[in-house]
Amino acid sequence: MRDVNIIGIGQTKVGEHWDRSLSDLAVEAALAALDNAGLDTADVLYVGNMLGGVLSGQEHLGALVADMAGLRGLPALRVEAADASGAAALHAAYQAVAGGSADVTLVVGVEKMTDRLPDAAEAGLATGSQGDYEAAQGITAMAQSAMLMQRYLHQYGLEVGDFAAFPVNAHRNAAANPFAMYRNQVTEKAYRQAKMVATPINLLDGAPLADGAAAVVLVATDHARALGHVGIRVLASTLATDSVALTDRDDVLSLGAARRSADAAYTHAGLSPEAVDVAELHDAYSILAALSLEACGFAARGQGIKLGQTGDIGREGRIPIATLGGFKARGNPVGASGLYQAVEIVTQLRGDAGASQVAGARVGLAQNLGGNGATAVTHIFSVN
Amino acid sequence: MRDVNIIGIGQTKVGEHWDRSLSDLAVEAALAALDNAGLDTADVLYVGNMLGGVLSGQEHLGALVADMAGLRGLPALRVEAADASGAAALHAAYQAVAGGSADVTLVVGVEKMTDRLPDAAEAGLATGSQGDYEAAQGITAMAQSAMLMQRYLHQYGLEVGDFAAFPVNAHRNAAANPFAMYRNQVTEKAYRQAKMVATPINLLDGAPLADGAAAVVLVATDHARALGHVGIRVLASTLATDSVALTDRDDVLSLGAARRSADAAYTHAGLSPEAVDVAELHDAYSILAALSLEACGFAARGQGIKLGQTGDIGREGRIPIATLGGFKARGNPVGASGLYQAVEIVTQLRGDAGASQVAGARVGLAQNLGGNGATAVTHIFSVN
Repeated sequence: MRDVNIIGIGQTKVGEHWDRSLSDLAVEAALAALDNAGLDTADVLYVGNMLGGVLSGQEHLGALVADMAGLRGLPALRVEAADASGAAALHAAYQAVAGGSADVTLVVGVEKMTDRLPDAAEAGLATGSQGDYEAAQGITAMAQSAMLMQRYLHQYGLEVGDFAAFPVNAHRNAAANPFAMYRNQVTEKAYRQAKMVATPINLLDGAPLADGAAAVVLVATDHARALGHVGIRVLASTLATDSVALTDRDDVLSLGAARRSADAAYTHAGLSPEAVDVAELHDAYSILAALSLEACGFAARGQGIKLGQTGDIGREGRIPIATLGGFKARGNPVGASGLYQAVEIVTQLRGDAGASQVAGARVGLAQNLGGNGATAVTHIFSVN
Repeated sequence: MRDVNIIGIGQTKVGEHWDRSLSDLAVEAALAALDNAGLDTADVLYVGNMLGGVLSGQEHLGALVADMAGLRGLPALRVEAADASGAAALHAAYQAVAGGSADVTLVVGVEKMTDRLPDAAEAGLATGSQGDYEAAQGITAMAQSAMLMQRYLHQYGLEVGDFAAFPVNAHRNAAANPFAMYRNQVTEKAYRQAKMVATPINLLDGAPLADGAAAVVLVATDHARALGHVGIRVLASTLATDSVALTDRDDVLSLGAARRSADAAYTHAGLSPEAVDVAELHDAYSILAALSLEACGFAARGQGIKLGQTGDIGREGRIPIATLGGFKARGNPVGASGLYQAVEIVTQLRGDAGASQVAGARVGLAQNLGGNGATAVTHIFSVN
């Protein structure tokens, strides 16, 4: 297997793009990533997307995005794994480059949801759950996260306000990110006073479903050198699954797939969690940020929430997360979010994060979850 | 890159499975393929599916099928490329094994459409077209094929009845296939008298949209030997794309992606079309069978239809197609059809096709199209 590097990144602003189609967004990010790599084309295109068919009546985004981007004829396919679709596409592309079937791979994650908010988008997201036994009973993705949070509060004797640090940190960090959807600040007081939307999840707890696209260009190391790039190295790309239904999980607060995917990534990279300087986790809800910190080995069971309270998740803390806003403030275009994470980690490792820069960051981790942890994809990146 | 072999196949009967879910069908085929390979599990699962989200409200089939098949935890993802989803999943799995990221790969194609016939299923299929410029104008997949057929008739001075040999051949061959949806015979007279459904496509011309699942187990050659299997070798797996909108194609009767994908497959396999003993093509409509015969180099431009009239596509002809019924008579569960093709070619190369056996078949080709040729995936298989 060959070493793999990222030599190009691109992204659209995250937000409500009512005047632009799904493929418009994907094309903007794809061409920006190619331009950033100094390339005109790639050997193959992978598109990560969850809901094109359900919300926009548009499947077949591999061929379509290639076509609309002026890359007609390029081998292209779509990868889907619910809200982990973006990172799953990156994983498939990584394997193609590492395994030698492509030298230059373009990966785009795209989603367009705000035309169909709130009901159709939330129902769409529920197609990532167990349809027969959970979604059909009205248990949406948000309801699942609410149940996880309720259980966490009970198990560890906490109160809702203890989660305030996650959105506060995310919004603080998004201020310097021109691509973020929400650059306003959130205070702990505002979080504590916010209205409940799915108890115990409140209005300032969940990430906004959004429109957006992000892309990266992956190449083999030798190819990067030939193109004059140093690149950011992909040290590991791992994917694991778990029971889709929460009711079938042995230990609902453990996020088993996230833990196994992270463990495999550390093993493959030859690193321990302590080596990670910056992380982008699946903070679609604060509870998922806390559980992901635990699954990735940054905190012991039940201690993820403490990293928020102590400031360890801040830009100058022990394990900075959501450094450009995370899902919470950058926004969550679900099938694109895994690619936004990769773009943001590369931005940090290049030292291009401006006021959001984590000083001296050399190793970054990104973890994207699908269906509240039924799929988990972990990537570890480093400077060369 | 490593040599890749198929050592297990499985399939459900194609038909109207109103009492079974999408995952039920996928699990049956997956476990049958593992059983056929003498294995209990695999390293990774790829699921090919087009319309789970749109028709069944169920995305995230990678994790879900792994879970329901008793393989919880297995790395799994879904690949989608419209009605080429099945072969696109096989292509991704082939690359994983060839590139060394997995030793044993399970690939399942699944679709469930008949609960939603006719309108929702046909509208679902249209999500594989250019949504903004074609599908939104009411140009369904069938309407696109009808326009291709009309143009072919005009260009080459033919009449509808000249296409009769394709469904006659498909139904004749399906008689011996216990997994086929339609095992009745179709006569040339019946075809000539059939009612028009989208002129010039008539009721006996198009393949029935159906429910079904098919699966294969892919392993590296060394691994196959260690397991005591001879296996069927995958000599080539290639994917190409074209403009999604028919209106954007330079030469609408050429199926450019199909041609480029086939050419690349022949080059990779080191074979010419003359070496192919049996082929499964994308005969969702007779016109697509004729155009595919041309794109794969079995006939010159405008001559594909003649291979039907001369009997060359028959079981004892020069290039037998639809040998177990094809899309037309086996039925077309769209995201599964590419896997049914692979299962059927393996059945032929194993010499297990019973009354449908092509004598002495040693090399087989399968070609699956998405969005009337916007994506084309070609596989070439051989006995070891």
